[in-house]
Amino acid sequence: MNVAGQSWTLLCRVRERAPLVQNITNLVAMDSAANALLAIGASPAMVHAVEEVAEFVTIADALTINIGTLSAGWVESMRVAARTANRLGKPWILDPVGVGATSFRRKVAAELISLRPTIVRGNASEIIALAGFAEARQKGVDSTQSTAEAEASAMSLARTLRNTVVVTGATDLVTDGERVVRITNGHPLMTRVTALGCALTAVTGAIAAVESESLAAATTATALFGLAGELAAQTARGPGSLRMALMDALHGLDEATVRSGIRAAPSG
Amino acid sequence: MNVAGQSWTLLCRVRERAPLVQNITNLVAMDSAANALLAIGASPAMVHAVEEVAEFVTIADALTINIGTLSAGWVESMRVAARTANRLGKPWILDPVGVGATSFRRKVAAELISLRPTIVRGNASEIIALAGFAEARQKGVDSTQSTAEAEASAMSLARTLRNTVVVTGATDLVTDGERVVRITNGHPLMTRVTALGCALTAVTGAIAAVESESLAAATTATALFGLAGELAAQTARGPGSLRMALMDALHGLDEATVRSGIRAAPSG
Amino acid sequence: MNVAGQSWTLLCRVRERAPLVQNITNLVAMDSAANALLAIGASPAMVHAVEEVAEFVTIADALTINIGTLSAGWVESMRVAARTANRLGKPWILDPVGVGATSFRRKVAAELISLRPTIVRGNASEIIALAGFAEARQKGVDSTQSTAEAEASAMSLARTLRNTVVVTGATDLVTDGERVVRITNGHPLMTRVTALGCALTAVTGAIAAVESESLAAATTATALFGLAGELAAQTARGPGSLRMALMDALHGLDEATVRSGIRAAPSG
Repeated sequence: MNVAGQSWTLLCRVRERAPLVQNITNLVAMDSAANALLAIGASPAMVHAVEEVAEFVTIADALTINIGTLSAGWVESMRVAARTANRLGKPWILDPVGVGATSFRRKVAAELISLRPTIVRGNASEIIALAGFAEARQKGVDSTQSTAEAEASAMSLARTLRNTVVVTGATDLVTDGERVVRITNGHPLMTRVTALGCALTAVTGAIAAVESESLAAATTATALFGLAGELAAQTARGPGSLRMALMDALHGLDEATVRSGIRAAPSG
Repeated sequence: MNVAGQSWTLLCRVRERAPLVQNITNLVAMDSAANALLAIGASPAMVHAVEEVAEFVTIADALTINIGTLSAGWVESMRVAARTANRLGKPWILDPVGVGATSFRRKVAAELISLRPTIVRGNASEIIALAGFAEARQKGVDSTQSTAEAEASAMSLARTLRNTVVVTGATDLVTDGERVVRITNGHPLMTRVTALGCALTAVTGAIAAVESESLAAATTATALFGLAGELAAQTARGPGSLRMALMDALHGLDEATVRSGIRAAPSG
Repeated sequence: MNVAGQSWTLLCRVRERAPLVQNITNLVAMDSAANALLAIGASPAMVHAVEEVAEFVTIADALTINIGTLSAGWVESMRVAARTANRLGKPWILDPVGVGATSFRRKVAAELISLRPTIVRGNASEIIALAGFAEARQKGVDSTQSTAEAEASAMSLARTLRNTVVVTGATDLVTDGERVVRITNGHPLMTRVTALGCALTAVTGAIAAVESESLAAATTATALFGLAGELAAQTARGPGSLRMALMDALHGLDEATVRSGIRAAPSG
């Protein structure tokens, strides 16, 4: 797998087709997720009312579901949207924010997992909690565990789902249960900006809308987003300017930068 | 109509009076709408609970209603707020985000339209869908049609409402059903930042609070906002820095820039 | 009280411990509150569903409650969260946004006040309205009264609560009902950026999580936030760049800057 070449191809495809990505996301991430989608060339829509959520999936090219600021009223919308996406064969991405923190989140996430998302993206503690494979330790919505600790959980979860799982952290890991890709793009300052993981989940929806092979889509999204963060960190003076520069960088990614900048190592 | 001179006059009036603008807006636009209102010199308030929405209209100088992230619980608040504004003779602005996308939106928007907003602001596809005059084609919340295609719909809708309709796009169009003003301020990069249309709707509320002639208010708001976006694009390196610079530009607009920078052509 | 020295000590403590701060905050402030917490070194979580709010308080180090975009569904969550924090002896901060504007807000705020928050932070009009000590005049969510006008109300409220009250404005005032500290950090342009008061409330939660003396915690948070805003204003070209630079400044605060930059005068 030539991740850099594939990433450039898929980025061009997003810019050409401008896929419509529907997001049922959290109240903190609304702004960053929509802006990241626009920056990369997709068309975002935040639609979550149960009265319209299924109808909207029929026109969307991909769906993302994020439980960051969960409330009971939205759970039925998540359920209906995921089922509709499955019925129509459209990709959908699950972001299990803070799943290890409360029993309400664990219950909702378990139900959504049973609907077999195309891609699950979380931090190490979230993926470990979801897989139930090892003891999860979570500090609120932040991870206290490393990608390496989550590897067995991620592979197990991917095999159960017969789909792709992404663990983001200092090193990112993408697996379909057999193959594993490690990505070392990104920058530590990204952890000091809220909702960037959620924004990556939205961008993953955009790439999955134009590439049906979920391992390739997830790898590309994670690598491109990390690269943009890394470029942004070169000029940032702190988390405020990093956030701004990341949106500029996502929008401005060119072929030379993508081909030379992505550091992804397939293995296994 | 000297749009540039009128715009400077009304901008000064907003800065002097700091009108209180109440917004029932969507979850993506909360931040940008509030910041745009503060940048232009108004006082924003996001108040939507049915328990207080009518009481708040009594102290507000203008109201804006935006259906971007519609949910059933907010519809009654929109209804009550619009009726209260009408009863008190206060201006209210409707932003029919994505109205063409689902039947839930069409139904809610039709009801709000029947309450005769002072100004309606949308993109071409939204205005065409609202007028029911031609076939609307909408991609999620983004328009796939041009301002020119929406002109007949906008004029028809304005005549029905006996009020003002704004169509924003590469060229903006403002009409009261008889007169038409075309504005060519703005910059293409603005379409890569989320919620700028919604922020313009909020700013339109601020101008309408200090100018009762709705065509003049809508023209001024649209021209000033486009000019600020254009100034921001001169230094922006992408959508992230454009968004930041737009708030700076709205705040810093001076007489020379407004008088020389606005490009608005009345016709009809 | 050496406010500058104490502020540096507590800032270091936050960076070292990364306290988990749970926020039930408003829809406008979600983004800025989370980013301010991350910038200062804390770990934010926005958790408000009644199904999980109490369970989350058990793992959080502090709680903040903000009524900015109040809705009936969230009031029970606020009640449950505040009671849980009290039972577990965890600090909680109340931000009574716009309390003077509607009877719904007055009723909810009065109930929350009866649960005795560790710290209350508001603008002059809000504190006057809460104390019921003088006539409150509020323009939406913005204050029309000065810190000096609110001093008697703040002291009275602090004595009733046997806790700490903060009034922010051109001069900030922090009091426990006996002692009064005045802080003159900050910059007028900060009033042109939305939700900065709410972000300060979140940061106050982070400091209160590592310092049990509420007067010291509130003074430190207010001084550090004002200092960061002041540093940001040195390079800002308007409210957009101020907001970005403030997050950079919070993240970058160093010992020399804190020790030399804080202007706080204890009295009384």
